[in-house]
Amino acid sequence: MSESWTLNAAEILPPKDFQAAAVASGIKPSGLDVALLYSTRPCWGASVFTTNAVKAAPVVVSQRHLLESRGALQAMIVNSGNANACTGEPGMIAARAMAEATARTLSIPMQQVLVCSTGVIGVPLPAERITGKLDDLKQGLSSEGLGAAARAILTTDTRPKVCTAETSIDGRPVRIAGMTKGAGMIHPQMATTLGFVLTDAAIGPALLREALAQANRRSYNRISVDGDTSTNDTLAVMANGGSGMPAIQPHSSALELFVEGLTRVCQSLAQQVVRDGEGARKFVTIRVTGAPSEEDAAQIARSIANSPLVKTALAGEDANWGRIICAAGYAGVPFDSSRVSISLGDLVVCREGGAVDFEENRASEILRQQDIDLTVHLHAGSSDATFWTCDLTIEYIRINADYRT
Amino acid sequence: MSESWTLNAAEILPPKDFQAAAVASGIKPSGLDVALLYSTRPCWGASVFTTNAVKAAPVVVSQRHLLESRGALQAMIVNSGNANACTGEPGMIAARAMAEATARTLSIPMQQVLVCSTGVIGVPLPAERITGKLDDLKQGLSSEGLGAAARAILTTDTRPKVCTAETSIDGRPVRIAGMTKGAGMIHPQMATTLGFVLTDAAIGPALLREALAQANRRSYNRISVDGDTSTNDTLAVMANGGSGMPAIQPHSSALELFVEGLTRVCQSLAQQVVRDGEGARKFVTIRVTGAPSEEDAAQIARSIANSPLVKTALAGEDANWGRIICAAGYAGVPFDSSRVSISLGDLVVCREGGAVDFEENRASEILRQQDIDLTVHLHAGSSDATFWTCDLTIEYIRINADYRT
Repeated sequence: MSESWTLNAAEILPPKDFQAAAVASGIKPSGLDVALLYSTRPCWGASVFTTNAVKAAPVVVSQRHLLESRGALQAMIVNSGNANACTGEPGMIAARAMAEATARTLSIPMQQVLVCSTGVIGVPLPAERITGKLDDLKQGLSSEGLGAAARAILTTDTRPKVCTAETSIDGRPVRIAGMTKGAGMIHPQMATTLGFVLTDAAIGPALLREALAQANRRSYNRISVDGDTSTNDTLAVMANGGSGMPAIQPHSSALELFVEGLTRVCQSLAQQVVRDGEGARKFVTIRVTGAPSEEDAAQIARSIANSPLVKTALAGEDANWGRIICAAGYAGVPFDSSRVSISLGDLVVCREGGAVDFEENRASEILRQQDIDLTVHLHAGSSDATFWTCDLTIEYIRINADYRT
Repeated sequence: MSESWTLNAAEILPPKDFQAAAVASGIKPSGLDVALLYSTRPCWGASVFTTNAVKAAPVVVSQRHLLESRGALQAMIVNSGNANACTGEPGMIAARAMAEATARTLSIPMQQVLVCSTGVIGVPLPAERITGKLDDLKQGLSSEGLGAAARAILTTDTRPKVCTAETSIDGRPVRIAGMTKGAGMIHPQMATTLGFVLTDAAIGPALLREALAQANRRSYNRISVDGDTSTNDTLAVMANGGSGMPAIQPHSSALELFVEGLTRVCQSLAQQVVRDGEGARKFVTIRVTGAPSEEDAAQIARSIANSPLVKTALAGEDANWGRIICAAGYAGVPFDSSRVSISLGDLVVCREGGAVDFEENRASEILRQQDIDLTVHLHAGSSDATFWTCDLTIEYIRINADYRT
């Protein structure tokens, strides 16, 4: 077994026995807007969905399908340009029509199709534009189609977001390949985050669900744009065993390795979402360390990452540690503030909960960088968590205030 | 007993046997920065404090005093310009020195003094500037001094915020008078909300605590500026019985009347904080109705009030109901989105969770107003809650990004 994964965040390379295709259906004014992802062999799947009480129709349909198929999943059909959210019963009919047409065209059970939509909320989805393109999509399926699919799922993103991880397990090359969309802070009606990961690793549905939950917890659940959770958020994985490796067993080192690879792919994708936040100029890594538990650390990091006051200070390149310790304080996790230290890069700006006479020039130099590391040490334990966020700029307000009109 | 209260949100009129004074101590570069509030007769008090894990020294000292005095409280000493937060043991010594000097000067027990500070975080407080002014403050005490005190507690506020409610109980005129500070969304190191309420009603400490908790829950806990909770937030009340009315009894109509008056005063003060949010151009009343419980309604209203996407849409005068229903959805309260309706003023923009073909001109007209009413009806019960917030503007970012430097 190899030691670890080689990560390529510039390309999406096809795992064995996966194919994809993309078309322009006219739901968007121009460009690719429908993607089909397909495993040419029987395949397991798992997915995590938005926790928003307002769930878009495709989310409801996909959740039901995965339940009914007990994790068998052979295709994903995705459209951009219309979220099919807040669209009532016609929206449910449209989501089912997308799945049904995909299943019929590929000769697989409807329950083995995942449906996703992203785009504007509250506008009826003309499903016939998608179903009418399914023959074209099937014709277009190829192992080279992943790049086009990664472009077709975008909305206001400025670039495709992809990642491939490779390793070998028992002498067999294994790939995990992912694509994602999410325009970060901007155009929030379209700020849905979708992520799709394909792997030729061999892993059953129960372990795959568990692996995805773990990966998601340390990737998509650790990014903050503006704290708004969309009606459509979906992160799904398909595993078809095409690599020929033996099936991953519970409590095995192969499972650990797989979780590591899946986590790294999801982290890379999630970070690309933060970096592409329109209006955002800074990529900020917030590490909370010395915490009693990873959950406590993550909760404090999330509170800092979501604070408008911290985010505007970062936009202003201002070493305002008072806002950071204040945001940590209202995370809902008790801690002794007189033990806390805070660093920007390697510069300590707060020690034992109080001011440090740091060099302002050095702080400015650090804050002028595009990538900023912010560390909060609680001195209260040995756990830590990392969070990724961006700054809050005038551009964010400008674009969001003017969006719909 | 009179039916209800007469509210005056332009003036602070002294309840019987209360005095106040204010001085300029030099903590702020210029202007009044220390206020003393004093009851000339024995008096009960109650206070709610910030829930932030990082508590400023005066908060720690004041909490201890109220506990030790079992609710006896005869004076409040308040400074602006320095929050005495994140200042370590020297900060505790400074807060105690303020209380000690006040107690000595007024010849009352130290435990009957409440201490509050607001201003910049992490800078040592020169307590001697305050203690050195206590003789002047004592000399200046008068029933006419409340207006000056209301000015002395301000930081970046653009105007004093005061309110007086009057009624008569058993033929005795009774007053509840309050002052508050809070610059809303801007200058967050100074965004602490302080509120001080004085009344000549006769009410014991247990009922007073309960009345304040109820009033706070429907006033200061129902406003949102940017969701950041400061290290210093304090809302305190003193009741000295100077009106001569008989003491309020549990479960009495007099208690109900008092809670109503206290709530209305606190609501007026809290709303003045929202209106004074620098950068804010809109005053938005969010009413969630048809909820299973008031708590559910308040939680959903809070989620909408805190959403940067909703707040930027309001700044942009954009009838973007998708953002509103989405923010309601991630409040953590389950509801059936297909029953939800949303109105701006009297214009329905979403019905049964979906789009309504409303007149854009009418929506623009409503959104151009400075005061906007936004109603979300869940059709899931008979409880409701009201929240007050403001819009999120470019000005907010501009001022916050540039603050410390």
